[in-house]
Amino acid sequence: MNAEDLLDDDAPPVSPATGRPLTKRGEATRRRLLEAAEAVFAAQGYHEASIVKITEGAGIGLGTFYLYFDSKQSIFEALVLDLNRRVRHSMTEAMVGAGSRIEAERAGFAGFFRFTAQHPALYRVVREAEFVSPEVLRLHYTRIVEGYEAGLRSAQDSGDVDRALDPETTAWALMGMGELIGMRFLLWERGADGRPPAQLDPRVFAGMTRIIDNALAPRAEEDDA
Amino acid sequence: MNAEDLLDDDAPPVSPATGRPLTKRGEATRRRLLEAAEAVFAAQGYHEASIVKITEGAGIGLGTFYLYFDSKQSIFEALVLDLNRRVRHSMTEAMVGAGSRIEAERAGFAGFFRFTAQHPALYRVVREAEFVSPEVLRLHYTRIVEGYEAGLRSAQDSGDVDRALDPETTAWALMGMGELIGMRFLLWERGADGRPPAQLDPRVFAGMTRIIDNALAPRAEEDDA
Repeated sequence: MNAEDLLDDDAPPVSPATGRPLTKRGEATRRRLLEAAEAVFAAQGYHEASIVKITEGAGIGLGTFYLYFDSKQSIFEALVLDLNRRVRHSMTEAMVGAGSRIEAERAGFAGFFRFTAQHPALYRVVREAEFVSPEVLRLHYTRIVEGYEAGLRSAQDSGDVDRALDPETTAWALMGMGELIGMRFLLWERGADGRPPAQLDPRVFAGMTRIIDNALAPRAEEDDA
Repeated sequence: MNAEDLLDDDAPPVSPATGRPLTKRGEATRRRLLEAAEAVFAAQGYHEASIVKITEGAGIGLGTFYLYFDSKQSIFEALVLDLNRRVRHSMTEAMVGAGSRIEAERAGFAGFFRFTAQHPALYRVVREAEFVSPEVLRLHYTRIVEGYEAGLRSAQDSGDVDRALDPETTAWALMGMGELIGMRFLLWERGADGRPPAQLDPRVFAGMTRIIDNALAPRAEEDDA
């Protein structure tokens, strides 16, 4: 997979076999394959997973697989990018209507944790990407950070966020917070059924909110901004 | 490896073959094996690594290996715990003499980044631990957090840190910040020789410092504390 294919986020998926965009029905089949891949990669890891297990999980013939993906690696990469699109969507959707940047941050984190609770595969798949496809791992993080950074810059312009913060560093810091808090308080709290709790413990969410509020709010001496 | 062995941090290493503590010379041999393991696991990953590659790297006979470790998994686990001890040591050493908790945090982060720059294997080995030995992964994070959390609690008592913060959540949040900033600005900046820069870009370190200062400082309305 080359970087340009990966970067073209809005292009509709094409068949690697025909090079043409998928039909509605084709898109539905591709979606079933991605859902089966999410379950198989999460349960078994990349090395144990196989194309046969994925097509069996999807109830789709093995030959059909190759109309959509070239290889185990290519469906894995497509899955990381698909989860990435969906987690960003969950975050931005949660942020709609927020009154300030700081409220938007809180809402964005809530969206991230909700998605993580529903898709515990996100972490495992992203962490395996470090070994399977480092380029896709970088894209995953970079795409989340870019949106963040832009939001922080414009909130600094409007005086909503401390202007002494470096937006790029802050975006990576906030993402790191979310990642480890999600790991500790969602993934490590999985019950006997393997499912994480549906949402973060309210004490932890309140603690996280206080950190974000403190970190981002303009300082008192800068209130003249 | 059982949890009690793992948790006994101060016990001197023993030979799994004899059950007795190692001599000085035995400890030096064990250290050479761990250093070779760090290089092999970092370069090749767990699956490709082998006991033979490690003993060759250490210049030690294959039979001797088993006086120190039972298996590839057991030297991998010992390596994670060894890196963990050393990264915590690098952090606490950097914090000695800090005038306030916030200064101590900054210094601790500097110690973490210095260790990461010298041991880029830390990240890869910890991330593989998620698949190879999840119990050791948890220990790695939990041990770092425990020290943090205790420091934050006592700084709250003395009014150095915002008392409305939840110490446990804050400790995980700070660790997440450090982890992703180290990933982005050290590991992803590796040169052609594969080595990360010796230290963090000063802009990024200053940006991180501002976030920590903002996040931890008591708020103005609490100055009566």
